[in-house]
Amino acid sequence: MTYCVGLLLNAGMVLLSDTRTNAGLDNIATYRKMFHFEEPGERVISLTTAGSLSVTQTTIARLREAIDDPDATEATSIMKAPTMLKVALIIGDMLSTVRQEIDEKLSTMKQSASASMIVAAQRRGGPMRLFLIYPEGNFIEATEDTPFLQIGEHKYGKPILDRVVNPNTSLADAEKAVLLSMDSTLRSNLSVGMPLDLCVIEKDACRVSRKRRIEAGDDSFRLMSEAWSKALRDAFTQITL
Amino acid sequence: MTYCVGLLLNAGMVLLSDTRTNAGLDNIATYRKMFHFEEPGERVISLTTAGSLSVTQTTIARLREAIDDPDATEATSIMKAPTMLKVALIIGDMLSTVRQEIDEKLSTMKQSASASMIVAAQRRGGPMRLFLIYPEGNFIEATEDTPFLQIGEHKYGKPILDRVVNPNTSLADAEKAVLLSMDSTLRSNLSVGMPLDLCVIEKDACRVSRKRRIEAGDDSFRLMSEAWSKALRDAFTQITL
Repeated sequence: MTYCVGLLLNAGMVLLSDTRTNAGLDNIATYRKMFHFEEPGERVISLTTAGSLSVTQTTIARLREAIDDPDATEATSIMKAPTMLKVALIIGDMLSTVRQEIDEKLSTMKQSASASMIVAAQRRGGPMRLFLIYPEGNFIEATEDTPFLQIGEHKYGKPILDRVVNPNTSLADAEKAVLLSMDSTLRSNLSVGMPLDLCVIEKDACRVSRKRRIEAGDDSFRLMSEAWSKALRDAFTQITL
Repeated sequence: MTYCVGLLLNAGMVLLSDTRTNAGLDNIATYRKMFHFEEPGERVISLTTAGSLSVTQTTIARLREAIDDPDATEATSIMKAPTMLKVALIIGDMLSTVRQEIDEKLSTMKQSASASMIVAAQRRGGPMRLFLIYPEGNFIEATEDTPFLQIGEHKYGKPILDRVVNPNTSLADAEKAVLLSMDSTLRSNLSVGMPLDLCVIEKDACRVSRKRRIEAGDDSFRLMSEAWSKALRDAFTQITL
């Protein structure tokens, strides 16, 4: 399992992902699920992945190959595509193609593979866009009404986002919100695990403004988590029925 | 969908259920999902249901028939069974039988039916027992380490229970905890809906000490919900990263 969340705010975009990958409960590993494609100042595309590792790794590898191909065109390279909608289309098509190929291999074992992605992207002069790309290659986009998107184990961490995130949320508060959302998920689902990858993309910077890896023993994350638990318990005590 | 939760505490047991039943998204109805079997002072059995309405209604009806049967024995009537473990067995067997019968009917349409239950029970002189009965008729029991059980849409409402409920929680706090857990679920899943049914069974009373139906417009529930939202937002503001 996995938990990834992306926020689209007036001030910028924030992505957070965990790193736990498991094949069954007895085979657990750590894999990065956040990837960046960047021409600083011109174009930034950051994405997070959930689902079958063979599908997501192959999709990312082929997206990179297509970028590095000397014959790359606007139709094949996400670093050349004229709009971020076109970027989402290229990623969606690649994800769908890879998923179908792997699904076919697995069908002989009566198994199947699937994956989804959150893509945060902006090019110079264009708007920020945040997409959720489905295994079939189609996608939806975050809007003012629903400024966050989630993939993987999304339920435990949704109530806090519902309550505190809106388009005017500051980037500092956004970072806090996604970390608390992750904290609730980590507590409830063993298949979501540390370390975490966080990135912040400030509006119109067209670059990854800040990256942070949060390791299992991270002091500031632990203190935040403990403070939140205490604050929740205090709030619970104060509420009267 | 449904959300039901049960707590087993040193001071007693608390059950809460919603009442929304749906066949698809365009066919929504209200049905009670909490049922009581009581011989006050001698024996109390309260249960909540999740899953296919035809399975749960038929199971409850047959449990009642078995109680009312003039030939009822310790092996067939939950009001005569010598222990609460035996009660769980009778309910589990009935649930499993009914589910299989209905499943067979539905199999001609390539559909299936399922249901699960939470059972809170105590007889005079015996301990309080809280069971989660699975569609197959087997069951698990709440313990000191995990004093709550949930059926239906359990994820949204779990973080608050994880943080505030332990065996020493008072019945008043327990009531607040299950209502806040339900509040988070109601906000995030349309297929869980008001009104709610709440019951409190005080330890060794062997009766339903308190029943409460909370209607959609209930003032105290709305105020609690608003106060909790505010408290969460305030707590969020206070936390530093």
